[in-house]
Amino acid sequence: MSRWEPNARDRLALAALELFEERGFERTTVEDIATRAGLTKRTFFRHFSDKREVLFAGGEDFKAVFVDALAAVAPTVAPIDAVAVSLEAGGAALQDRLEFARRRQQVISANAELQERELVKLASIATALAEGLRQRGVEEPAASLTAEAGIAVFRIAFERWVTAPDDREFGELILESLQALRAVTASA
Amino acid sequence: MSRWEPNARDRLALAALELFEERGFERTTVEDIATRAGLTKRTFFRHFSDKREVLFAGGEDFKAVFVDALAAVAPTVAPIDAVAVSLEAGGAALQDRLEFARRRQQVISANAELQERELVKLASIATALAEGLRQRGVEEPAASLTAEAGIAVFRIAFERWVTAPDDREFGELILESLQALRAVTASA
Repeated sequence: MSRWEPNARDRLALAALELFEERGFERTTVEDIATRAGLTKRTFFRHFSDKREVLFAGGEDFKAVFVDALAAVAPTVAPIDAVAVSLEAGGAALQDRLEFARRRQQVISANAELQERELVKLASIATALAEGLRQRGVEEPAASLTAEAGIAVFRIAFERWVTAPDDREFGELILESLQALRAVTASA
Repeated sequence: MSRWEPNARDRLALAALELFEERGFERTTVEDIATRAGLTKRTFFRHFSDKREVLFAGGEDFKAVFVDALAAVAPTVAPIDAVAVSLEAGGAALQDRLEFARRRQQVISANAELQERELVKLASIATALAEGLRQRGVEEPAASLTAEAGIAVFRIAFERWVTAPDDREFGELILESLQALRAVTASA
């Protein structure tokens, strides 16, 4: 068997997702995943550090999408609108992966440890956005509040996107959630 | 030695905090804590399930403070203002514990696992507040957004409270953070 397996990474990710769905995350081993994909454990470990990593790989790249988009917004744009641009960029990066995102979310919802990991991932993006806002000259606590509120908007739009039956665009749901946030905080 | 030790719980909590500060959370054992408090491991386990529990005990009671305060607000009050009342109640419950909160926060900041646990605790309060808002007739996504934004306000006010040198009242910092959130989301 050659060391190079075509599409090994995608085959492993798909096999893992199937097994997590069929028997649960805890009861799936790396060996199960490799076998289902028709590959070896060694090949698995060339692509992922552990089975959890299958669901969270690319997290740093994903965070960079938000950070880079924020950095590219003109400095005259208001902080919340700059964050909105950043959230839309994050949403656009997922838009074509709805099917995977839906199935991944189901697996995560069934496991407390994975939910914690997801919270940590989003908190880390919020921290990076707050830092980006401070670099734009936004002071505290406004920088952290804008970043955290933005991530709340993203998370809630994401949940609607993956659970809603009506296949609406993620970007549209982000803008709608942001509008809802403005409405609730504007009330007298 | 009698089975009943006066102030055992407080003595254990204080001993644990001292040891976490001196040698770090990971390098402190339950045995160390009991010895420092002049008590037995068995007494420790009558009060706490493990050493992490020393820092997170009372979490359900704390959550109930937020939930009960929200439920007591007149139904005509706007959601964000009802959440503000709830946050102030949560803040009031901590106001007299500044010294403990400061030291606890230092310990948590030094340990990724404890930070995750703290994130989970706050996310759980946000979930409970969103449920309370839905019971008040607030629809989604407004309910979840108001709850999540409220918890962001609380967290940021809390960080300022425990790190600021000027001993300002926690409740005042909560109102100031909420005002800052309104300002950033109101921008055109």
